[in-house]
Amino acid sequence: MLDDLRAQVCAANLALVEHGLVTLTWGNVSGIDRDQGVFAIKPSGVPYRGMSPDDMVLVDLDGTVVEGALRPSSDTPTHLALYRAFDAVGGVTHTHSTHATALCQARRPLPCLGTTHADHFAGTVPLTRQLTPDEVRDDYEGNTGTVIVESFADLEPGEIPAVLVAGHGPFTWGADARTAVDNAVALDACARMALLSGLLDGTPPQLEAHLLRQHHERKHGPHAYYGQ
Amino acid sequence: MLDDLRAQVCAANLALVEHGLVTLTWGNVSGIDRDQGVFAIKPSGVPYRGMSPDDMVLVDLDGTVVEGALRPSSDTPTHLALYRAFDAVGGVTHTHSTHATALCQARRPLPCLGTTHADHFAGTVPLTRQLTPDEVRDDYEGNTGTVIVESFADLEPGEIPAVLVAGHGPFTWGADARTAVDNAVALDACARMALLSGLLDGTPPQLEAHLLRQHHERKHGPHAYYGQ
Amino acid sequence: MLDDLRAQVCAANLALVEHGLVTLTWGNVSGIDRDQGVFAIKPSGVPYRGMSPDDMVLVDLDGTVVEGALRPSSDTPTHLALYRAFDAVGGVTHTHSTHATALCQARRPLPCLGTTHADHFAGTVPLTRQLTPDEVRDDYEGNTGTVIVESFADLEPGEIPAVLVAGHGPFTWGADARTAVDNAVALDACARMALLSGLLDGTPPQLEAHLLRQHHERKHGPHAYYGQ
Amino acid sequence: MLDDLRAQVCAANLALVEHGLVTLTWGNVSGIDRDQGVFAIKPSGVPYRGMSPDDMVLVDLDGTVVEGALRPSSDTPTHLALYRAFDAVGGVTHTHSTHATALCQARRPLPCLGTTHADHFAGTVPLTRQLTPDEVRDDYEGNTGTVIVESFADLEPGEIPAVLVAGHGPFTWGADARTAVDNAVALDACARMALLSGLLDGTPPQLEAHLLRQHHERKHGPHAYYGQ
Repeated sequence: MLDDLRAQVCAANLALVEHGLVTLTWGNVSGIDRDQGVFAIKPSGVPYRGMSPDDMVLVDLDGTVVEGALRPSSDTPTHLALYRAFDAVGGVTHTHSTHATALCQARRPLPCLGTTHADHFAGTVPLTRQLTPDEVRDDYEGNTGTVIVESFADLEPGEIPAVLVAGHGPFTWGADARTAVDNAVALDACARMALLSGLLDGTPPQLEAHLLRQHHERKHGPHAYYGQ
Repeated sequence: MLDDLRAQVCAANLALVEHGLVTLTWGNVSGIDRDQGVFAIKPSGVPYRGMSPDDMVLVDLDGTVVEGALRPSSDTPTHLALYRAFDAVGGVTHTHSTHATALCQARRPLPCLGTTHADHFAGTVPLTRQLTPDEVRDDYEGNTGTVIVESFADLEPGEIPAVLVAGHGPFTWGADARTAVDNAVALDACARMALLSGLLDGTPPQLEAHLLRQHHERKHGPHAYYGQ
Repeated sequence: MLDDLRAQVCAANLALVEHGLVTLTWGNVSGIDRDQGVFAIKPSGVPYRGMSPDDMVLVDLDGTVVEGALRPSSDTPTHLALYRAFDAVGGVTHTHSTHATALCQARRPLPCLGTTHADHFAGTVPLTRQLTPDEVRDDYEGNTGTVIVESFADLEPGEIPAVLVAGHGPFTWGADARTAVDNAVALDACARMALLSGLLDGTPPQLEAHLLRQHHERKHGPHAYYGQ
Repeated sequence: MLDDLRAQVCAANLALVEHGLVTLTWGNVSGIDRDQGVFAIKPSGVPYRGMSPDDMVLVDLDGTVVEGALRPSSDTPTHLALYRAFDAVGGVTHTHSTHATALCQARRPLPCLGTTHADHFAGTVPLTRQLTPDEVRDDYEGNTGTVIVESFADLEPGEIPAVLVAGHGPFTWGADARTAVDNAVALDACARMALLSGLLDGTPPQLEAHLLRQHHERKHGPHAYYGQ
């Protein structure tokens, strides 16, 4: 069942390693088949080396495992919440990548400082609010999804496919699992450059609005002219 | 004698290199067989490349070499002190990994700044006091063990399997040699993110206590639900 | 047509990856045949892995594609502007390399802080002015070339073969595509060291003029004695 | 002539690449045969890839090339000055390694901040004075050697086998070419940790004198007990 999806999601999880976004087993990717209402996700606590498509766990939009011998990622309820709230999302990535996580720990959103950011994210990547003690105790991973969705009350998740969870790490998403990983790569690179810019005295200026819009549109707008 | 232990300890030493935790020969791992009261440890000053299980040195809990053609790591008395003081420890790692050592040199403990830290360490990783001139002169490596053990007078070494030795570098431990290495990897990653967070103005906030506890428990508590 | 040029330009694009200057597809190199008035450039949005000389797109000095099945890099009008304005340039590189881009984002030129810089660049690498909203809207990539050329009104592009585009990233050039890449490598290394120097309190001093001149001349002057 | 020396020096030059100490062709190693009064050194401006022992150039202590088809490193007069002034030195390394060079550019010596430093260098690694315009014009590379030697007027080069040349980069030395490279590796690692320590507010404390001495002696003293 859903062999292609499993293969794509397995490859996307392995791409996290290739891009240097994960340490030990700290990261997971999922991808969804919207017609069947089922997503494939990395199994919990399993090393990337030697992982195969058969190890991916299939979960439906009620959060029930529908196929797979292993337990799904403990972050599955967060992925589920994003698939339920954001209709156009086809893939979700969670990492503890170094630079994006440093921003999460410093409780800072990531403003747009340059065209690298604008190519992927059409404005500031938001920081979630902190979870309350009750939210942590009652349904920690589900409520992590809740606070992410709250952060997008006035934002379009397709325009800014990333969030920084306060005290935790980033989630990114996209049309499919691989695009979600590419956005995780872009987010960490932008976070790294933002931290480096911060080495210099003074606060780096945000990118001018007209340049932000131009760069995002040339890749993602109706008249995009980047790529083949 | 203890061929499996030698093989595990040799593999754990080589894992230090794979994870980028060692420069030249600056790092060593040991693992113990509690039934026999004997631990295996890396030989002193030997390059990792080409190292084999037969090169590991076997030492008993009196500090006597019981098997091995080579001299054990010069840090052996520190490992010994930890095995004697911390009953549940099955493996010990010492490195001069870049970021954890930078904290040792700055004489700073590592507070819990995020869930990455909470997944591995249930609170602040302590900094030892400095050794006195007498302690350095009389039994330097043994007394390094002494000040580590002192740092855990009010802490549970199973909850916080790591320490920062002032002016020197980190020691980590765990159920076996490989787990001790994983904790060394996690410690350096957390130290790196803490240093990056420090680039921004202001001090990064510590993780909320309820979130710290939840993350540690979901991996290590009686009702842990992370992993297979 | 121009098989050697295609092969050189393809190899130079792949060298960006080897030197760690690109993330995802963020970087492109071109090289020109001045006799034929045609340059070869990376196709837009194509991954480096598996790219071959046949994928390179040939463009003339009016900006018309003269051969190639794929669309050229969306930054082609910037390359074109540089080839038209700087007669001696044989190759152009554009990256979003981490450290040079961090300077672009911080809106800082790169002064000469040491002999590593002096070996490649005979003085401060300039920062362009910002583009106006009109310039961005009307011919964004062409006008990026315009502001680069403006920055060299009083500078010799052969002496300082690099520029930092404000809010964007670096462009470098040289006698051929490979030299342009070498200059991109040197620029990012110098930017990295400048950022690290800035960690210390106080502003790092600029290199003494006599030492700057000596280092540049021993590699590039009429009596150069570096190399074979 | 001197085939073993050539092979050792070639391998030591390649070890610079393996340890990540060089960018492009920015680094060179030499090694001397004291009986014959001849040293082997990397040829100038030649890429490391594909370099063989036959490419090494043999130079005598008057600075005359005695064998080799290629020109020696343009830094040869500096190596020569060190061999002439420091009798016990058997190998010399020069790099523009990132972190040590950042200190050179910031015009800072490297104090001993921890035991990693103490294991290799028995105190502060000095910074040279700046060369005068006359010194740069008349015999730039030879005078670079002169200011290094001046820095050791009151220091023992065997105890502190490294120097930071102001505005330029580090030189290190040792009993042979390979040891000189190991010291270059150690110097850059110590410089990196010093820069990271400097991220935190306040100046990191210097290592206590008794600990500095103990660590250096356990590796290098008459009663050393590190290694086999």
